[in-house]
Amino acid sequence: MTHSHDVMERVDLIFSTRTHIEQILRFEAALARAEARASLVPAAAAAEIEAACRLEHIDVDAIQRDAVHAGTVAIPLVQQLIANTPIAARVYVHWGATSQDAIDTALVLQMRDGLDVLASELRRVAEAAAGLAAAHRHSVMPGRTLLQQAVPITFGLKAARWLAAVTRQLRSIQALRGGSLVLQFGGAAGTLAALGTHGDMVARLLGEELGLPVPELPWHAERDRTAGIVATLGVTAGIIAKLAGDIVLLAQTEVGEVAEGATGGAGGSSSAMPQKRNPVNAVSATAAAHLAIGIVPVVLSAMHHEHERAAGGWQSEWTAIPDMFKHTVRAASHLGSALASLDVRVDRMRENLAAAAGTLMSESLATALAPRLGRPEAMRLVGELSERALRDGGTLRESAQSDARVASALDAAALDRALDPSAYLGNSEQLIDRALASWHDLTRERGWS
Amino acid sequence: MTHSHDVMERVDLIFSTRTHIEQILRFEAALARAEARASLVPAAAAAEIEAACRLEHIDVDAIQRDAVHAGTVAIPLVQQLIANTPIAARVYVHWGATSQDAIDTALVLQMRDGLDVLASELRRVAEAAAGLAAAHRHSVMPGRTLLQQAVPITFGLKAARWLAAVTRQLRSIQALRGGSLVLQFGGAAGTLAALGTHGDMVARLLGEELGLPVPELPWHAERDRTAGIVATLGVTAGIIAKLAGDIVLLAQTEVGEVAEGATGGAGGSSSAMPQKRNPVNAVSATAAAHLAIGIVPVVLSAMHHEHERAAGGWQSEWTAIPDMFKHTVRAASHLGSALASLDVRVDRMRENLAAAAGTLMSESLATALAPRLGRPEAMRLVGELSERALRDGGTLRESAQSDARVASALDAAALDRALDPSAYLGNSEQLIDRALASWHDLTRERGWS
Amino acid sequence: MTHSHDVMERVDLIFSTRTHIEQILRFEAALARAEARASLVPAAAAAEIEAACRLEHIDVDAIQRDAVHAGTVAIPLVQQLIANTPIAARVYVHWGATSQDAIDTALVLQMRDGLDVLASELRRVAEAAAGLAAAHRHSVMPGRTLLQQAVPITFGLKAARWLAAVTRQLRSIQALRGGSLVLQFGGAAGTLAALGTHGDMVARLLGEELGLPVPELPWHAERDRTAGIVATLGVTAGIIAKLAGDIVLLAQTEVGEVAEGATGGAGGSSSAMPQKRNPVNAVSATAAAHLAIGIVPVVLSAMHHEHERAAGGWQSEWTAIPDMFKHTVRAASHLGSALASLDVRVDRMRENLAAAAGTLMSESLATALAPRLGRPEAMRLVGELSERALRDGGTLRESAQSDARVASALDAAALDRALDPSAYLGNSEQLIDRALASWHDLTRERGWS
Amino acid sequence: MTHSHDVMERVDLIFSTRTHIEQILRFEAALARAEARASLVPAAAAAEIEAACRLEHIDVDAIQRDAVHAGTVAIPLVQQLIANTPIAARVYVHWGATSQDAIDTALVLQMRDGLDVLASELRRVAEAAAGLAAAHRHSVMPGRTLLQQAVPITFGLKAARWLAAVTRQLRSIQALRGGSLVLQFGGAAGTLAALGTHGDMVARLLGEELGLPVPELPWHAERDRTAGIVATLGVTAGIIAKLAGDIVLLAQTEVGEVAEGATGGAGGSSSAMPQKRNPVNAVSATAAAHLAIGIVPVVLSAMHHEHERAAGGWQSEWTAIPDMFKHTVRAASHLGSALASLDVRVDRMRENLAAAAGTLMSESLATALAPRLGRPEAMRLVGELSERALRDGGTLRESAQSDARVASALDAAALDRALDPSAYLGNSEQLIDRALASWHDLTRERGWS
Repeated sequence: MTHSHDVMERVDLIFSTRTHIEQILRFEAALARAEARASLVPAAAAAEIEAACRLEHIDVDAIQRDAVHAGTVAIPLVQQLIANTPIAARVYVHWGATSQDAIDTALVLQMRDGLDVLASELRRVAEAAAGLAAAHRHSVMPGRTLLQQAVPITFGLKAARWLAAVTRQLRSIQALRGGSLVLQFGGAAGTLAALGTHGDMVARLLGEELGLPVPELPWHAERDRTAGIVATLGVTAGIIAKLAGDIVLLAQTEVGEVAEGATGGAGGSSSAMPQKRNPVNAVSATAAAHLAIGIVPVVLSAMHHEHERAAGGWQSEWTAIPDMFKHTVRAASHLGSALASLDVRVDRMRENLAAAAGTLMSESLATALAPRLGRPEAMRLVGELSERALRDGGTLRESAQSDARVASALDAAALDRALDPSAYLGNSEQLIDRALASWHDLTRERGWS
Repeated sequence: MTHSHDVMERVDLIFSTRTHIEQILRFEAALARAEARASLVPAAAAAEIEAACRLEHIDVDAIQRDAVHAGTVAIPLVQQLIANTPIAARVYVHWGATSQDAIDTALVLQMRDGLDVLASELRRVAEAAAGLAAAHRHSVMPGRTLLQQAVPITFGLKAARWLAAVTRQLRSIQALRGGSLVLQFGGAAGTLAALGTHGDMVARLLGEELGLPVPELPWHAERDRTAGIVATLGVTAGIIAKLAGDIVLLAQTEVGEVAEGATGGAGGSSSAMPQKRNPVNAVSATAAAHLAIGIVPVVLSAMHHEHERAAGGWQSEWTAIPDMFKHTVRAASHLGSALASLDVRVDRMRENLAAAAGTLMSESLATALAPRLGRPEAMRLVGELSERALRDGGTLRESAQSDARVASALDAAALDRALDPSAYLGNSEQLIDRALASWHDLTRERGWS
Repeated sequence: MTHSHDVMERVDLIFSTRTHIEQILRFEAALARAEARASLVPAAAAAEIEAACRLEHIDVDAIQRDAVHAGTVAIPLVQQLIANTPIAARVYVHWGATSQDAIDTALVLQMRDGLDVLASELRRVAEAAAGLAAAHRHSVMPGRTLLQQAVPITFGLKAARWLAAVTRQLRSIQALRGGSLVLQFGGAAGTLAALGTHGDMVARLLGEELGLPVPELPWHAERDRTAGIVATLGVTAGIIAKLAGDIVLLAQTEVGEVAEGATGGAGGSSSAMPQKRNPVNAVSATAAAHLAIGIVPVVLSAMHHEHERAAGGWQSEWTAIPDMFKHTVRAASHLGSALASLDVRVDRMRENLAAAAGTLMSESLATALAPRLGRPEAMRLVGELSERALRDGGTLRESAQSDARVASALDAAALDRALDPSAYLGNSEQLIDRALASWHDLTRERGWS
Repeated sequence: MTHSHDVMERVDLIFSTRTHIEQILRFEAALARAEARASLVPAAAAAEIEAACRLEHIDVDAIQRDAVHAGTVAIPLVQQLIANTPIAARVYVHWGATSQDAIDTALVLQMRDGLDVLASELRRVAEAAAGLAAAHRHSVMPGRTLLQQAVPITFGLKAARWLAAVTRQLRSIQALRGGSLVLQFGGAAGTLAALGTHGDMVARLLGEELGLPVPELPWHAERDRTAGIVATLGVTAGIIAKLAGDIVLLAQTEVGEVAEGATGGAGGSSSAMPQKRNPVNAVSATAAAHLAIGIVPVVLSAMHHEHERAAGGWQSEWTAIPDMFKHTVRAASHLGSALASLDVRVDRMRENLAAAAGTLMSESLATALAPRLGRPEAMRLVGELSERALRDGGTLRESAQSDARVASALDAAALDRALDPSAYLGNSEQLIDRALASWHDLTRERGWS
């Protein structure tokens, strides 16, 4: 829990106005250095600009106030920066750049940090899921379709599916770092005209200074990269909602197969109802995930940027993208906390296998009967036996044992086998192994293990 | 601008965690008073609880931290409140209520304040629009469909349409106050069982204390009221986006019919391009409006609250609804600033009437020719004249004047009239009057005038 | 089920291109009649136009093909209409109107029919809910918060909450008919200039002909009315999702408190798993409701119509609004089918009250103990007893009976009462009565009963 | 236009219920063949099943009707298929599979075809954009930020940015084919238990038969792949909206820099206003793009699939995903038509450079003056000159020529150069070349050139 609280503070900080301004200063300092390397700016002037580019010299409140007038934080920030720079060097501040170059690149740097935090939280989720997959490969439980018991699975398999999904998200997020986090540098309308013929070289050097790839063209008004990041986070949020939703459902009083563990705090218990053990982290993850998903269409429908710079669509990103990261990281962090402390109740899983008179084994029984009776007849018969069991309050085992047609097809041992959930798990173990292998591959590649 | 900044601070404050806690305290104090009036709680105990229900006694940071564990702010807040209450009165704190009663009612109180701020900002928009409608009832300009010049209108008519739309929003918001802002009070699962047979009376008295209507049933998991508020604000945001979008389009360099006025600040001008006069407020309004719209589906799709209290859908409202109000108020405030300072350039409107060789008058000319030539022939002929004018760089007037068929149908005075934009405005004035009358009706009803 | 299929066909028909064209023809015929009444068009010509305005004279396929070029169906439709009209009357076809007048008014007429179908389906939902509320006022079941058992409720109360929510939706939809379904008539740019000074009179007569109120101004580019309809349907869809979601959760194998009834068809049973009784209607309702909700932001974010007619936002309504009605009606219809055939399993409800060792009664027990022990001590003690019961596999009753502190406070009869779910229902019956009364009020007002 | 109409019919067909059923039949036939290859099904039975798997043997209407009851099309389809198969082979129909295997895999096959159509339409867009980029590398026009003229660009550069964005979309779509279009095959709850130990082999062979990769695990309830496809299409739709929006803005009467070309049909002209040349295709593309974007949150927020198969979230995909493809393909097709026939008016571009008294060159002039006057002074001076020109109705050139400070810094030739838009284009040409090279790389890789 302390973990979640810390992580949220970290992501809130990365996407605070303060840090945004700090990253713009980083851009401006790097620009001066790059232009000095390109011999466009005297080295001394670049050094003076760099010295001025420190957050402690900046009046953040004034910038926020002036930004309401100016329409961007970059304009008042550059004004302050010029005022803080020795006169001779002032001419070189922000040279050749436009506000959007500074703001977009700063946001890219913030997103780079934000993706690191998100990946770290997802890794925590994956580690917990991997642990559950391995530990519960033999913990048989009901598989449920449309929330009705269908056939048995293991909790290990369920956790393996969770793990595989999260592993895929980590790969998607990794791919973003390479392809979508790129420098923005194009000047007033994307031509870098103010730098004459030197634009290309400065762009290359600036990219080096900031550790950002230089894209084929500036992208002031073509937002597929930022939208792609948001869309990817949206898919990740969707997967988080899936996992969290499963926890909430499994934690229901009547199901009781998992519970969120005690965590030393006030806990998810209600003061008035001491018996309650609310799945607080899963609930919080669900809420945050849906808030994140809500940002996606905002950013997508804002993509119709007008001409060379948008009148609204770009500006909405300044709120939407930080919110997207905050919500998604919150969701991942809460999910990690839920999984890391999950109480798994194997006894309840076993009990629940009998919830519907054991009819969860009807497919298995029909499959066992089919070679003798033909599949249609086998299915019809099992349907009849199941209905009888459910109607009369008995069990499928009882109605099967007392049926002559079953007896003619299966001896007692074969019937036992046909009704044994742990013998009807198909290739579950293989699938668990595959999910674990895929996760271990990733951890090796990334040097996490 | 100072205006916008102040308004944003006000709405941010109303929807801050601090104020949320303050409103919960208000609920708890009112509950104690109501229960004292119902003779369930000794008057002295109620007074002690009320005394404890002051924000300065509360450790807000601790609540925020503990809420991560507890899943709501109400649980740690009630714990602090109990600790702050003299021992004998503690048993009566939060009596019969559930966390959701306190949180939902607090949010209703916040929304009540939020709607007041929003209405006030929309009133500012309407006043500006009404002023423009009245002042520009004779300012002829091109009407544009699909951004192509169609037939003439007046700027007064455009402003009247804006006014009418905003007047309708003010009426919708007013209707919310009566119908959707209601008390939440039902206890753990909506039965008020902890209050035995006194639940109904306490609910009535609590509603009185807080000035909130008591609904027919508690609504913990049926969120049509909160969703309806959000949906209504979404429609308002859409109208704001429409008005702001028109300003941006009219302010284009090539159109130049309006500009946002200077406001004494850094202004919407670019440091590198002194000629630019960016429609900063309209742009900010557009961005905020689209952020607001993005909240609507979040709240709607969160409505599937499970059973008696939701596991995610409710919790997402705690972020979504405050964001909804903040974004919508921001949008309205920026729009008001844009309109209140709008420079209207009647000369540019007049010039633009000639932009397409005056062919904007072709419907008028065809209408004038129709009685003589028949409408099909009239339209065919005007099409031919228009095309010639556009192709040859002349004007519709010139090609009409030199055409024998036109001369046979219209004398010079009639042709002049047919080509006079100010004579082809239909019932524009009547429509302006109607929009103004509807607005004045509302101001009278509300005692604003 | 046949019911759902029929209803879907009906709503699909109302919002088909064919019917859209038919409603445009209705507009054009009514326009000719209105203009004849205003003495602008000869009566004979109006009669000829009206005769031409019949769907069987129109080549619908050609219109759909040509609409791709023309950008609207109205342009090729008016062209066909002119061609089908005797030459002398042709000049009067579509006189003074613009394509958008015809298309918007046709859509309003379609929405009017669509709202009738929706109201009829919601009425079916309400009737089923009212029946359940009345029949199950004493059917005790667990109330659940965050899907954890909290305190007892009755199934009647749950159904009453459903009923109240649907009753509110029916009132909202009724309000739309009065306020939002209005005539569109303004000519090319909303001035009705082509009708000279007669625009206002024609508008009034046209409204009469079509049974539509005439709004204060044309609303070509101010879409708060259409958006408001869509937003209201979105809230209704959200309530449908809530009810359907509750059914799905109650139908879970481990809960088993309701099941969708057999309906004579293939049924929601799986061929491979005969025991499954899938809540097919509730699932279909959920899916359709979320599709409906997805339309809302499309329409809201399309509201920024440019100037006098939009370049995209309007056109997207042509798909979005029909889809909105289709999805919402589907959702309502499936929900009605689910509720109308619902098997309610009172025995399972009773059994489930014991699911967590009877600790669902802990609030009740604490309330009973509080007068003697003080509430904090009462709650602490009950917490201890509940935990012991849950841990040791006993029941709250057993641990309470064996506890000396409980015995000191409550005699056996009082303890029995404190542990009796049917004695801890607060004002549930009163709430049920109130929901029923509110529903009966509406049925009386509307003449349904 | 015929093109757009044909493409829409093609995508509608791919995502029709008919084709969906056809692809399910393809799945069932392939499954029988795969199981025959695995020696689980006699070759003769597999051949008989394959023979039955033809659309002409199927009563599609009956399936649609029964699907309302059954909850899926697969259940009634498999029933028909069994009925159409010779008795001895019936037992092998759909062996080991679950409805969701058939439905999901069929949808994957449909999406594979849909992505081909989309890629083909985007290629058409890219080809047109590449043509414009190459043809207009010297066509100088105003660059516009916030719809205000900023500095000059070329139309070739604008088209190059469009091209680069579309090229990136084509690469994203290509990546989907490899990573997201995978087989679904897991049986009732994802264990393939009905196939005993043969599940893995059958999956591999089935993947071969259908040309689909076999994923590491079945993905019934983990929808990141389908959601990822939808999210990618959403980003593509956003880019389409950007391009279409630019066309609409450039086509405005007052801007007039492009127009959609005549296409032989009824055209985008209004019958009442012959001068109008509506950008019909761009408008239709915008509308369709925003409809597409609206689908994205529906699919993302439906990702919380419950347990092993969803009760609503999955079912909503059946409508949402086909709609997503239809809208996106429509949008791309309309955009291609707009670009393929675009009239580019280089003369209007040139004229518009002078729209604001030539102050578009103020950054250039300030840059030229800076070495002499210092940048702050240069900017201040140019600001003063620009304002004077705008106020007095002159030009920046005139006010600069008459200013002594300018004369002291720049001779006549240097001033001319500083005011020449075609001399202030930075690295525009280089950027155009880069966009073209990136496009040509892709065409080569894909064998298109």
